[in-house]
Amino acid sequence: MSSISVVGAGNVAVHLATGLLKAGVRIESCWNRTPEKATKLATLLQCDTVSKIEDLAESDLILCAVSDDALPLLIPQLSALARVVTTSGTVDVLSLSTNFPAGVFYPLQTFSSNRTIDLTTVPIFVESTSPEFTRALLELGNRISQAVTELPWEKRVQLHLAAVFVNNFTNHLIDLAQQQLTRADLSFDWLKPLLLETVEKLNNQTAYDAQTGPARRADLKTIEQHIAMLPPEQAAIYKLLSSSIQQRYKQHD
Amino acid sequence: MSSISVVGAGNVAVHLATGLLKAGVRIESCWNRTPEKATKLATLLQCDTVSKIEDLAESDLILCAVSDDALPLLIPQLSALARVVTTSGTVDVLSLSTNFPAGVFYPLQTFSSNRTIDLTTVPIFVESTSPEFTRALLELGNRISQAVTELPWEKRVQLHLAAVFVNNFTNHLIDLAQQQLTRADLSFDWLKPLLLETVEKLNNQTAYDAQTGPARRADLKTIEQHIAMLPPEQAAIYKLLSSSIQQRYKQHD
Repeated sequence: MSSISVVGAGNVAVHLATGLLKAGVRIESCWNRTPEKATKLATLLQCDTVSKIEDLAESDLILCAVSDDALPLLIPQLSALARVVTTSGTVDVLSLSTNFPAGVFYPLQTFSSNRTIDLTTVPIFVESTSPEFTRALLELGNRISQAVTELPWEKRVQLHLAAVFVNNFTNHLIDLAQQQLTRADLSFDWLKPLLLETVEKLNNQTAYDAQTGPARRADLKTIEQHIAMLPPEQAAIYKLLSSSIQQRYKQHD
Repeated sequence: MSSISVVGAGNVAVHLATGLLKAGVRIESCWNRTPEKATKLATLLQCDTVSKIEDLAESDLILCAVSDDALPLLIPQLSALARVVTTSGTVDVLSLSTNFPAGVFYPLQTFSSNRTIDLTTVPIFVESTSPEFTRALLELGNRISQAVTELPWEKRVQLHLAAVFVNNFTNHLIDLAQQQLTRADLSFDWLKPLLLETVEKLNNQTAYDAQTGPARRADLKTIEQHIAMLPPEQAAIYKLLSSSIQQRYKQHD
């Protein structure tokens, strides 16, 4: 890829585009629905902004990192101008009608504005409508990551679904714990070594084998005590997850 | 404490007692319901086993690391012999009728047989029926950990409940993700950088601020697609957690 343009100015766009820039890829220009955001990103990427989407035609590849909802309309439009990739884990881009080849450049990571991510360890999954374009995308990925793989949509959606459990849902459970600690006037710092060990354990055992706690032991007295301590919405989550754990080990013990 | 005896031979007993031994605390003897387990632990702790529980009377402190169910019967019995502590996060030991003082020595961590834990970072919470005994327990804790705190039962149960969300429930969600990846013939290794970042993010932001994903964005199309991909039990968990996330941000956005 001799030059890339960027559509979108969210966390995925920022992290990927700055990573590509650092790896020596030329960023031609960027466009965003909100011009102020485009200007801010352009400063970061040392590139131009374009006011009309049609002016992105100059570039060799358009990296489109916007919300999934916008893709079915935006991808056909962008593919009239140049080759285009989305960063989506869920949308079946290859089923869209496009002029230039369209593809996927999906980084499997959670990006925040205040965090620096080591892109070399981030798995990137690529797919496209042409073998030649796929090869170019694999090469592009290899410039920033050591884990670039071609993966069809059917597998990508499965990975994305697993990522929702591993990141989004676990994070929400930690949010619930943090709310509960705040109510009890206790510090989350006390839970940090436990949280770290929860993850590190999984380097040498499955989550199935790593499971501990009242539900795993079928300690009904503690389960009842805990449920009585929680507000109704959180008690419902406690019940469903405890019952799921008990069911899982009832089947296999 | 000049010498300690150990009751129980599970992961908590093994990790705490070996940590105390390494810190120079003399382990007098150990007892377990299953004599073979006691013998195994005695070898590890370079101590004697006793066949009758009454023979534990020789020690200065009995460390009782058994399941919560067994405590209401066992603690009064042990407290007739010597001062006794449990490692329980939930049982209100001080409400039990005891002869020698009874207390709590609760390590907030998940212990597995195949993992080495750096006890210096493990928060330990102590409580007892006598100020003098509490001081002795704080001193004992300080020999193995840098985070020893006196905490009453009312707070300890709140911490333990938060720990169930942070460890037990997140681990089960990862188990569900691993099951789903196995069904799709995909490697969990691809999710490991995401899992690590999920935790590391929380060093400089709250889980509330760190939340991303389809439910956070109210991306109903992706949520529906995911639910259709899951077996009924896992779909129910997906629905409840997604609805809880949507509710959380509807209230505060």
